[in-house]
Amino acid sequence: MIRRYVFGNMIETEAVLNKPEKSEGPLPYLEVREEKKSFLYRMDPEERIYGLGENVRGINKRGWIYESKCSDDPEHREDKHALYGAHNFFVADGKEPFGVFIDYPGILTFDVGYEKSDELRITASDWNLEVYIITGENVKDIVKQFRRLIGRSYIPPLWAFGYGQSRWGYKSADDVREVARKHRELGIGLDSIYLDIDYMERFKDFTVNEETFPDFPDFVKEMEEEHIHLVPIIDAGVKKEEGYPVYEEGMEKGYFCKKEDGTEFVAAVWPGKALFPDMLNEEARQWFGNWYRFLLDQGIEGFWNDMNEPSIFYTEDRLSDVMEKIKEYQGKNLDLNTFFEFQGLVTGLSNNTNDYKYFYHERDGEKIRHDRVHNLFGFAMTRAAGEAFERLEPEKRILMFSRSSYIGMHRYGGIWQGDNMSWWSHLLLNIRMMPSLNMCGFLYTGADLGGFGADTTEDLLLRWLAFGIFTPLMRNHSAMGTRRQEVYQFDRIEGFRHIIGLRYRLIPYLYSEYMKAAVRDEMMFRPLAFDYPEDRYALDVEDQLLLGEEIMLAPVYEQNARGRYVYLPEAMKMVRFCQDGIQKEEILEAGHHYVEIPLTDVVFFIRPGRLVPLAGPAVCTKEIDFEDLTYISYVEKGEALYEYYRDDGYEKDYDNPDHITVIRVQK
Amino acid sequence: MIRRYVFGNMIETEAVLNKPEKSEGPLPYLEVREEKKSFLYRMDPEERIYGLGENVRGINKRGWIYESKCSDDPEHREDKHALYGAHNFFVADGKEPFGVFIDYPGILTFDVGYEKSDELRITASDWNLEVYIITGENVKDIVKQFRRLIGRSYIPPLWAFGYGQSRWGYKSADDVREVARKHRELGIGLDSIYLDIDYMERFKDFTVNEETFPDFPDFVKEMEEEHIHLVPIIDAGVKKEEGYPVYEEGMEKGYFCKKEDGTEFVAAVWPGKALFPDMLNEEARQWFGNWYRFLLDQGIEGFWNDMNEPSIFYTEDRLSDVMEKIKEYQGKNLDLNTFFEFQGLVTGLSNNTNDYKYFYHERDGEKIRHDRVHNLFGFAMTRAAGEAFERLEPEKRILMFSRSSYIGMHRYGGIWQGDNMSWWSHLLLNIRMMPSLNMCGFLYTGADLGGFGADTTEDLLLRWLAFGIFTPLMRNHSAMGTRRQEVYQFDRIEGFRHIIGLRYRLIPYLYSEYMKAAVRDEMMFRPLAFDYPEDRYALDVEDQLLLGEEIMLAPVYEQNARGRYVYLPEAMKMVRFCQDGIQKEEILEAGHHYVEIPLTDVVFFIRPGRLVPLAGPAVCTKEIDFEDLTYISYVEKGEALYEYYRDDGYEKDYDNPDHITVIRVQK
Repeated sequence: MIRRYVFGNMIETEAVLNKPEKSEGPLPYLEVREEKKSFLYRMDPEERIYGLGENVRGINKRGWIYESKCSDDPEHREDKHALYGAHNFFVADGKEPFGVFIDYPGILTFDVGYEKSDELRITASDWNLEVYIITGENVKDIVKQFRRLIGRSYIPPLWAFGYGQSRWGYKSADDVREVARKHRELGIGLDSIYLDIDYMERFKDFTVNEETFPDFPDFVKEMEEEHIHLVPIIDAGVKKEEGYPVYEEGMEKGYFCKKEDGTEFVAAVWPGKALFPDMLNEEARQWFGNWYRFLLDQGIEGFWNDMNEPSIFYTEDRLSDVMEKIKEYQGKNLDLNTFFEFQGLVTGLSNNTNDYKYFYHERDGEKIRHDRVHNLFGFAMTRAAGEAFERLEPEKRILMFSRSSYIGMHRYGGIWQGDNMSWWSHLLLNIRMMPSLNMCGFLYTGADLGGFGADTTEDLLLRWLAFGIFTPLMRNHSAMGTRRQEVYQFDRIEGFRHIIGLRYRLIPYLYSEYMKAAVRDEMMFRPLAFDYPEDRYALDVEDQLLLGEEIMLAPVYEQNARGRYVYLPEAMKMVRFCQDGIQKEEILEAGHHYVEIPLTDVVFFIRPGRLVPLAGPAVCTKEIDFEDLTYISYVEKGEALYEYYRDDGYEKDYDNPDHITVIRVQK
Repeated sequence: MIRRYVFGNMIETEAVLNKPEKSEGPLPYLEVREEKKSFLYRMDPEERIYGLGENVRGINKRGWIYESKCSDDPEHREDKHALYGAHNFFVADGKEPFGVFIDYPGILTFDVGYEKSDELRITASDWNLEVYIITGENVKDIVKQFRRLIGRSYIPPLWAFGYGQSRWGYKSADDVREVARKHRELGIGLDSIYLDIDYMERFKDFTVNEETFPDFPDFVKEMEEEHIHLVPIIDAGVKKEEGYPVYEEGMEKGYFCKKEDGTEFVAAVWPGKALFPDMLNEEARQWFGNWYRFLLDQGIEGFWNDMNEPSIFYTEDRLSDVMEKIKEYQGKNLDLNTFFEFQGLVTGLSNNTNDYKYFYHERDGEKIRHDRVHNLFGFAMTRAAGEAFERLEPEKRILMFSRSSYIGMHRYGGIWQGDNMSWWSHLLLNIRMMPSLNMCGFLYTGADLGGFGADTTEDLLLRWLAFGIFTPLMRNHSAMGTRRQEVYQFDRIEGFRHIIGLRYRLIPYLYSEYMKAAVRDEMMFRPLAFDYPEDRYALDVEDQLLLGEEIMLAPVYEQNARGRYVYLPEAMKMVRFCQDGIQKEEILEAGHHYVEIPLTDVVFFIRPGRLVPLAGPAVCTKEIDFEDLTYISYVEKGEALYEYYRDDGYEKDYDNPDHITVIRVQK
């Protein structure tokens, strides 16, 4: 059951399209403390809190303060409070499980037992919000109701399930060709190459640098013939430059965000000074969305939306102020206090929360200060694209994922898990965020495999890929200035080919699981606790996941480890794929196990009575034969069933019952 | 066997006082690549590399580049390469174990399988160094030979094994009194309170702020009557201030480091502009050491040396340059490149490696540019103190530990593990650094419990203390601006009292183990691999430690975990101390176990045939009765033995055989 409670007068987020009637009477579970703009809930000692989408720390969120404030912060350390998304949904799993969604576009904090270990305290910046309380049989049921409430998740084209290679630093079409050639020559699967900011002309959205990427439509076609999709980045900021049509048009029509005095708000990003299209304004959103045509018309079928928290390197106004203030420090003896003040001026130029108070949106004639709707910007940008794709290419699935997000955006695109680092701890964070994002509707997601910032190592990349082959978005991405991390940069080519090859063999299964999760509003990845709520050990497992109803994953995420502990809530079949092509199967009893997993092995577990279909080898999605499958099953006796969802990967009649066939294996 | 090889003409470090004869002939194990100033060693696939003292990542160092470059960097993230110390000793444990010590005062890198997974490459900044190759029966034997080579480790007074409370932010004697009072009132053990920079008059070494700490000697005495020792911080930089005697004297005698032109090198630290005493110059070192008398004479018996990498907020010269350059950026459109350049100017002011090329030491009449001897500065500062203590208080043990260090410094003081963060991963790093520091002679060590930077949580502090009660230095320390973390700030007072109480009961054992490790040149903390080299699983364990011959530790270091996996290479007795005073014992068989460990329990394991003595309750070391002991033993049949080292904790006749008695328990 879902009940909606209204406090004040919320600025509409459109997270929920079909709202249930407003409930009267007291809010259940949560104590209202209006004077503190907060809700208080007392947790049982062993109660677990799941959800909050994209954020730091564990699957069980207890013991920290989380903030819903879309933030461009690549250091996802455990002392941070916010990442790129704002996902205000959680389930409290104590004596009586219930879900809470706070629909609120401003900044919100969740103190989950930080200040007091038994108190969960939600505090909003103002008192205009709606609260949904969801009760149900169990956590899975509550999540499903919530997912139904917020609407069906975005569905990408089939090719987006292939392996993608990306790097901020591919400077030219020839750089990209080299990446394609290397993968194809070595027989390493590849479906897409991502174009980071360098494909543009001086970082201007909807331009292509004609010197470095000449004859772009031909180049797109050339890659397409190799079955490789180019996926360009789109930034939230539009360069301020006379004669640049996006800027000129936006100015002429008044589509950019403005300051209080009605002049345009200028904030610098990649190109330096730039303006933010007012994505919350319907007309402006349509206008910005239509610009994607510039690339669609050149054959592009997928995009990633970046910098849409929005990220701000500095604002024109703050930079002038800082430059003035710096003068006061000149010639002085700067001690501890004054020196850090001085340094803080300059480091505080970027993504300064105060800047969000200096510009406005206009929606239905009303001026709204940005900080009040901060968390909607990335959502609105991606919605601009998604709505445009529906208008411009109604028959086609276009790949779209975003960095920033709010619940509701999951209907228009996926997200990648932001600019992470080449840290082993970020592989673990990747694992932990899969279920919390699924809870909030984000199914098409994955992390930058190998890590975006900092230097990767061969073993980290191998282990990360061995997990990444299961995530819908499977992309290797890294930052300029870091070690190159295309798989062919390393020695263990065989190992990489083997692991990525397995991804392609798994795609019929992964795609089927994705589609079922999307059309049925279910989670593709779940913590063990969701399926084994009575199992005391399962409740604590923070480094294993269930995938669909068939698979349990237990990735290795520690350097130099030759294996790991795995907890089995019931007997399962362990399947091992070795680099030399050998496939081993072994039944393990319920309980605690230590499992050896060499660096180039992939190991997963099949649950009783289940089967997993596997295709033959392929190096791109186009090559996969979805009919010619083998099955790995775990049947003690009787039969194993699998509901196989199969469409052509591009059509949109998602609910057609013919897409489902049942596969049976008997023993 | 230890062989010494000489390359070029090393600037003497005094890490090794009694050098073996120089060996002729080719260097074993390592391939010399003089043109690259490097040594190359090819590792077996499963060879493990142990050592390198204070650095990031695992017990087995494979898979990363480590740098010996003493660095003030509080973010001990896995992508960093250097921390505060420079510890150039490692043991390669493959087919034939051997140890390598590179005696070299400049910057050195160890690529341990990063570039190529089977290559270990050591690269020096210049080719003047000495290499020691140590062979022996096994890793422990090699370490012992090395420890004997570098000389006996520093031995602190007994009270330094008590619990210490510290915070950057105790502003006055009354703040300190409050800390003392709270601990005593609540019956929580405490032996020392640390004074961070605020006790000084405007951050000037060897001053006391008379307004906030009036009548300091009386205050020291007042605390002493409570059996609490005050431990002030000493910084490496001396404030540049007319009339301040340390500055005036140092200038007059020419004891500060100078630039090439012979004028003093001015670098800012806490007080703003400051000068570095030339700690490498014997006269200057003596002079600086004598200044500790200022506090010794007021009753102080312990110190910590900080900022001695040396840390530099900015240099006078670089700051002027930057201020000039900033002007060039004014009024320009700063894009990606120019904006990060601009920000980099200001962030690059601090701890800029280039600054180490702008000042000089003078030793035996020779001018030495700082970067060539960078890693000796913290060592030399602590030596200044240690030598002074021998001159000024020859009968007394004075507590001394340092932030920066080089091998050799372990004879003069301990180290704390630097300015860490309130991260769960830093609790794990603390565990992992204990053995690598022991290998390099640093026995008196521990991390800032609860974490220095960032906000701690109650559960993190509980878990960290439950490990910290075993480390010789047991100090809770945190930074200004972070959450207060004295244990009485939290709800679970009983739990904290219980855990710290157990520390006091363990002190007879811990002190005995410390003393034996020191006088016998042994490791107090070892990885399982050192004692069970034939056990395949033991080799991989990165989160358990052996303490002495008796105990195995398996701390919990993950939030919300109710237990953890523990590997037992042989049957052991699990001992559990619960908050309610109940003590449980259970024998666990060899193998893999999952052990539940509630938040306020302390669990450890006793090895077969061993016993651990426990004292009765005490709230300070003075109260401990070292004769009235109970024993926990694991004897299947026959007897358990313990060699108990017992002196008065203050005398210096460490080698007196009467200090050892053998305790026997029969069954």
